Amino acid sequence: MVGAPPPPDKQLRFDDGSYFQFPAMRWSVSHFRQLMPTVNVSRGVGAPVPLPRAMRKDLDAVRFVPLGAKSSMTWEESLAANYTDGIVVLHRGKIVYERYFGVLNERGQHGAMSVTKSVTGTLGAMLVAEGRLDENKRVAEYVPELASSAFGNATVRQVLDMTTGLQYSEDYADPNADVWIYSQAGSPLPKPKDYTGPRSYYEYLQTVRPQGRHGAAFGYKTINSDALGWIIARATGRSVADLLSERIWSRLGAEQDAYMTVDSTGTPFAGGGLNTGLRDLARFGELLRNNGRFQGQQIIPKAVVDDIRRGGDKEAFAKAGYDLLPGWSYRNMWWVTDHPDGTFMARGVHGQRIYVNPQAGVVIARYASHPVASNSANDPTTLPAFDALAQHLMKKPR
Amino acid sequence: MVGAPPPPDKQLRFDDGSYFQFPAMRWSVSHFRQLMPTVNVSRGVGAPVPLPRAMRKDLDAVRFVPLGAKSSMTWEESLAANYTDGIVVLHRGKIVYERYFGVLNERGQHGAMSVTKSVTGTLGAMLVAEGRLDENKRVAEYVPELASSAFGNATVRQVLDMTTGLQYSEDYADPNADVWIYSQAGSPLPKPKDYTGPRSYYEYLQTVRPQGRHGAAFGYKTINSDALGWIIARATGRSVADLLSERIWSRLGAEQDAYMTVDSTGTPFAGGGLNTGLRDLARFGELLRNNGRFQGQQIIPKAVVDDIRRGGDKEAFAKAGYDLLPGWSYRNMWWVTDHPDGTFMARGVHGQRIYVNPQAGVVIARYASHPVASNSANDPTTLPAFDALAQHLMKKPR
Repeated sequence: MVGAPPPPDKQLRFDDGSYFQFPAMRWSVSHFRQLMPTVNVSRGVGAPVPLPRAMRKDLDAVRFVPLGAKSSMTWEESLAANYTDGIVVLHRGKIVYERYFGVLNERGQHGAMSVTKSVTGTLGAMLVAEGRLDENKRVAEYVPELASSAFGNATVRQVLDMTTGLQYSEDYADPNADVWIYSQAGSPLPKPKDYTGPRSYYEYLQTVRPQGRHGAAFGYKTINSDALGWIIARATGRSVADLLSERIWSRLGAEQDAYMTVDSTGTPFAGGGLNTGLRDLARFGELLRNNGRFQGQQIIPKAVVDDIRRGGDKEAFAKAGYDLLPGWSYRNMWWVTDHPDGTFMARGVHGQRIYVNPQAGVVIARYASHPVASNSANDPTTLPAFDALAQHLMKKPR
Repeated sequence: MVGAPPPPDKQLRFDDGSYFQFPAMRWSVSHFRQLMPTVNVSRGVGAPVPLPRAMRKDLDAVRFVPLGAKSSMTWEESLAANYTDGIVVLHRGKIVYERYFGVLNERGQHGAMSVTKSVTGTLGAMLVAEGRLDENKRVAEYVPELASSAFGNATVRQVLDMTTGLQYSEDYADPNADVWIYSQAGSPLPKPKDYTGPRSYYEYLQTVRPQGRHGAAFGYKTINSDALGWIIARATGRSVADLLSERIWSRLGAEQDAYMTVDSTGTPFAGGGLNTGLRDLARFGELLRNNGRFQGQQIIPKAVVDDIRRGGDKEAFAKAGYDLLPGWSYRNMWWVTDHPDGTFMARGVHGQRIYVNPQAGVVIARYASHPVASNSANDPTTLPAFDALAQHLMKKPR
C-alpha cells in the first residue's frame, strides 16, 4: 500500500482477506496495525538498552545442506529461500549479523504469528513458578465459563504443553478447518447480519468439544494459547498484553513498543497476535538464553527456563507426526529439540522464529513472509542453516 | 473495557458509534487503536531525551475567574471542570506540573483530535519555508484529482489558513452535518452493501463544492487539513505519518511512538487522527516555543514559528464569529491570540490543547474528554486558567 492513494489494484483491505495472500502478505505482515485494531505492549518510557555489536562478515558464506537435499547452500542464499523480512543473530549477547529485506526495517514491527504462543506460554509458566497458577488444577477452576467445554477438565499443564484432547483442526490449507471459524470469531470487524457463530475468542473457546484423552498426545492447537491467555487474565487481573508489558517488555531494554491484535471485545490474540521490532524479539530470546536474567535482574524465574529446556513429553510429541522434528517435544509453548546443544525455538507460520542455542551462545530472531504457512515448507532451509551458523560461531570465537 | 471479557454493557465497538458518547468516550480517547486501524509514527529506536523536572506545589492554588463567571476557581478545580485526562506544564523547558486522571497515564497515548491539524499545518509550513511547496500555487497543481473540486483553485496558503470557500458543515451537534458523511467516508470499516458515497478521505475531498470566495473568511473545516495532507504526500512522496516521524517525531527526544488513525486505503487522518503520549505532545509545544530548535538542531525552520506567531488575517477570522476569541487569528493551522505575550495554541474537540506562551516561557499540553465536543464549552475554564498559571509562573521564578 504505497501512494497517495495507493492505486486500486495495490489497495489491501482486511475484510476481503486478500491482504494475507502472497505477495500482498509481504506488506501486511509488517503492517498489521494498519489493517485492524490493536493494543499496545508498552516498553515503558525510559532509555532502551542498546545491543552491543560485533559484526561478522564471514557468515554469509557459511554452507549447509538443506534437509532432503543433495547439494549445499550458503547462509546468504537461505535468506531468500526463506522469504526473510528481517534476521538478527546474537552471539554471546552481541549482534554479529543483521539484515532487512522488503518493507521491514529497524523501526518497523512485524507479526510474530505463533511465536506469540511461546511468549504467552512463558508468562503462564512464570505464574506457575511463582505459585500464582497451579499447573495441576483444572482449567474450570480458573475460568468457570470453560467448565462445559473440552478445556474444563484439562489441567493448566496440559494446556501449557498442548496435550489437551480437543476437536479442532488447524490445517490452514483446508478451507473448512476450525481455524477459520475461530478466525471469524476473533475478527474485530462487524459480523454479517446473518452471522450466528461465536463473536469473540472467549465465546469460541466455550464451544470446543473434546476429542481423545487429555494428556495422551501433543496436538498443536492455537486455542490452547488463548485458553491460557484467559487463565492468565483471570489469575492476574491483567490482559496478556498488559502483563507482557509489565513483566517483560518494560524490563528488557526494548527499543520499541510491541503490540497485539485484538478481537471485538478487546481481548488480545494470545495465540498469534504479537507484533514486535526484530531486535526486541532477539532481546526476548537472549533473555531466555541468559536463564531469565537481564542486567542483574531475574525477569523470568530460572526455573521456567530450566523447565523449557528439559522439554515436554517426547512420546506425546511423536504421536503428532512431525517428520522433520524427530525427538523434539513441546513445553510451555516452546519447541524443544533433542540436540545436545540444548536448542529450543519459538515457531510461527510463514517462517517467524526465535532460535536459542545455549551451548553455542547463539540467538537468532527471524521475521519472514514465506508463501506457505506451515513451517515444514521452510524448515529444510532453516533448521540446518541455523545449526550450521551456530556451529560456525562456536568454532571461530572472536 | 475492563475484564476478561468486559461485561456486555461495558463493551465498546467502533461500528455502533457508542464508543464516542460520554462517559464511554473517556476510555475510547485513550484507546483509539484498540477500536480501529492505525499507522505508527516512529520516535526511532534511540534513547528518549528526558524532560527535566522542577515540580511546583504552589500551582494548584492559583486562582482565576472563568469567562463569564462572577466567582473565581482554583487551577486544581479547573482540572475536573475540564474533564482533564492528563496535563503537563513546562516552564522554561522544565516540567513544573504533571497530573493524570481516569485511564490515562505516562505510558498511554491519547487522541489529539484537531491538535493534529496544527501538526499537519506545521509540516506544510516547513515545506513552504524550504521551497518544496509554493504557497501561492493552486491546489490542483499539486493534486490534479482535486482540480474540479472547490479546492482546485484555492491556493496552498488559503488551505493552510483555512480561508477556502467550501460547502461543508462541521457542526458536531447537527446529525446531518457534512462532517458525518466525511467520517463515514474515512471509516476503515467495510461499507454497507447499499453504500454509494465516497470510500476514503481522498474520494470525499474530490466531491467538495465551493461556497463563497476563497480568501474572504476563516472557516474552520477539517477537510482543509486532509487536503493539505494530500498536498504534502504528493510533494514529498511521504504520508503525513511517515513525514512526521522523519522530520519531527524521531528528532524531538520523544519517549513514545505516536500513531495516527487511517482510512481503508491507509491514508492517515491528517485532520484529527494523531495520538501521542502527553509528555511528547508537550515536547512538540516546547519545540515551537524554542523557535524550532532542539539540542542545537533546527528541526523546524525559525521562519515557520515566526510566521505562526505573526498570526493570520484577523479580519477574515472575525467573520467566523468566535465570541470567546476576540482579536485571534488562524495561521498554518494554529490558533493565534492577540495577547502581548505572544500566546498561540493548538485546539482539539473535547478539550485537547497545546498552549505556548513565549513571553512567560510556558508550554501546557492537555488531554481531556469533555462531554461537549466544542471548545467553547471548556474555553471559559481553560483560557483564563492557562493565562493565570503563566502569569503566576512569570511572577515567581525559581
